[in-house]
Amino acid sequence: MDIRSDIPAQDIERYHAKALEFSSMVRSLILSQLEVGFEVKRKSDNSLVTSVDLQVEEVLRQQIQLHFPDHGILGEEYEPENSRAAFQWIMDPIDGTEDMVRRVPTFGSILALHYRGEPVVGVIDHPLLDMRVNAAYGFGTSYNGKAIRLTDLDSAAIDGTERLILPARDNFVKYRDDGNLFDSLVRAHPNHRIYRSCFAHTCAVAGLVDAAIDYGDAIWDIAASRVLIEEASGKFVEVGKWNVPNLGFVYGTVFGKPTLVDRLVEHFRSDG
Amino acid sequence: MDIRSDIPAQDIERYHAKALEFSSMVRSLILSQLEVGFEVKRKSDNSLVTSVDLQVEEVLRQQIQLHFPDHGILGEEYEPENSRAAFQWIMDPIDGTEDMVRRVPTFGSILALHYRGEPVVGVIDHPLLDMRVNAAYGFGTSYNGKAIRLTDLDSAAIDGTERLILPARDNFVKYRDDGNLFDSLVRAHPNHRIYRSCFAHTCAVAGLVDAAIDYGDAIWDIAASRVLIEEASGKFVEVGKWNVPNLGFVYGTVFGKPTLVDRLVEHFRSDG
Repeated sequence: MDIRSDIPAQDIERYHAKALEFSSMVRSLILSQLEVGFEVKRKSDNSLVTSVDLQVEEVLRQQIQLHFPDHGILGEEYEPENSRAAFQWIMDPIDGTEDMVRRVPTFGSILALHYRGEPVVGVIDHPLLDMRVNAAYGFGTSYNGKAIRLTDLDSAAIDGTERLILPARDNFVKYRDDGNLFDSLVRAHPNHRIYRSCFAHTCAVAGLVDAAIDYGDAIWDIAASRVLIEEASGKFVEVGKWNVPNLGFVYGTVFGKPTLVDRLVEHFRSDG
Repeated sequence: MDIRSDIPAQDIERYHAKALEFSSMVRSLILSQLEVGFEVKRKSDNSLVTSVDLQVEEVLRQQIQLHFPDHGILGEEYEPENSRAAFQWIMDPIDGTEDMVRRVPTFGSILALHYRGEPVVGVIDHPLLDMRVNAAYGFGTSYNGKAIRLTDLDSAAIDGTERLILPARDNFVKYRDDGNLFDSLVRAHPNHRIYRSCFAHTCAVAGLVDAAIDYGDAIWDIAASRVLIEEASGKFVEVGKWNVPNLGFVYGTVFGKPTLVDRLVEHFRSDG
């Protein structure tokens, strides 16, 4: 029994509708900040943060507190709020901050609602690409407002032409000594791309590629992806979860068309 | 003495202006074909070709023959024309055809004019991204209509945060046994991306990344890139040129901010 069946369908619809409203609000904010300019700083872990990241997360937190005062909030830039609540909004205000700073249009904004750890609503929005994927448990997945379903790959079509997105090699060695996994994956699946942002997830959800792998992610990086993929008839597998000191849990995930996902997961069993 | 100094400046301006006209025409054609739909086939080398690739190259050839009947034409989809002419228009009508078929917006259209083997005019246009870089010898480089100049990286800034675009590993093993080069590059430069199309070149020209490497390309893949990079104060180095049976010459190139390009070129000397 899926615990999410406990949630009345009209509540899921309402959360989903609000998530889309929040996402549109965030898109306008990001586009206006790109127009007028913004501040950029390095965080203690050497990653970038901008005034846009902070403002987007502030706006989302205000909206969530206004509409769902009893829900929790977990985001990249500020402290968790209401962390024992059953419903948790999880966000990465800007995923691919470095790309946004350089105006590479693949960066995006991620928003998800989880219920007792299970994803109920997920949205990934790319303001400069005018691309958005969204899903709600039991209500399917949409890409730019249109319902979509992934068509599985025939296993004979996994012949080297299959389209795979990987994270950079660094993601396999930053917290783990799994560089060998990257090396075997790029050899086994020569038609690979590396986008370094949630654009990889959007491409897998919308079927623009056949599958994607992400590795060494925080919860907010992947919070929207499982419901987005599963509601599109795809498969989402967590291949690893590790507790990193001073950081918390990081995840390894494989998602996309089921037959290819199954094949990819074998790499993590044999080499991991 | 640069042989391109033989060409009157007003001629270069005229070629450049026409190249931009041709590029706008191509953009409209591509956008309308994406709207109405198009035919997709596999070529004998298993790569994709569509009716859009063919139509774009046909339109470009007609326009060039009309305006520059004594110039030569070299393109991916049809036979060379007037191959002994001093001026040669070189084109990849759609670079990243597979991405275009899947609606990944990074594909683009490449057009260049060479004079006795030296690039005079270069344009890369991305219809779905509304992005274009263009340059003419002696007239500088523009990105979306605005003149640009690359700011070199300080060598101390090459500390792992430098932004590099690579081709997929397959490009290093398709015609050469240089997989070790890919393996050493992804280790030495952890902040890497793989886009598999001329979007990599556009990002390097516009300074959205610090440098790019391409490997195993045909002449039309790189025909615009040298003048685009050099006119933006960047550096373009050919690190290899090999004659592949039944295909002709393929090239290895490194281009972008000079200090990083110099550092990258060392990999090809020590490992290549």
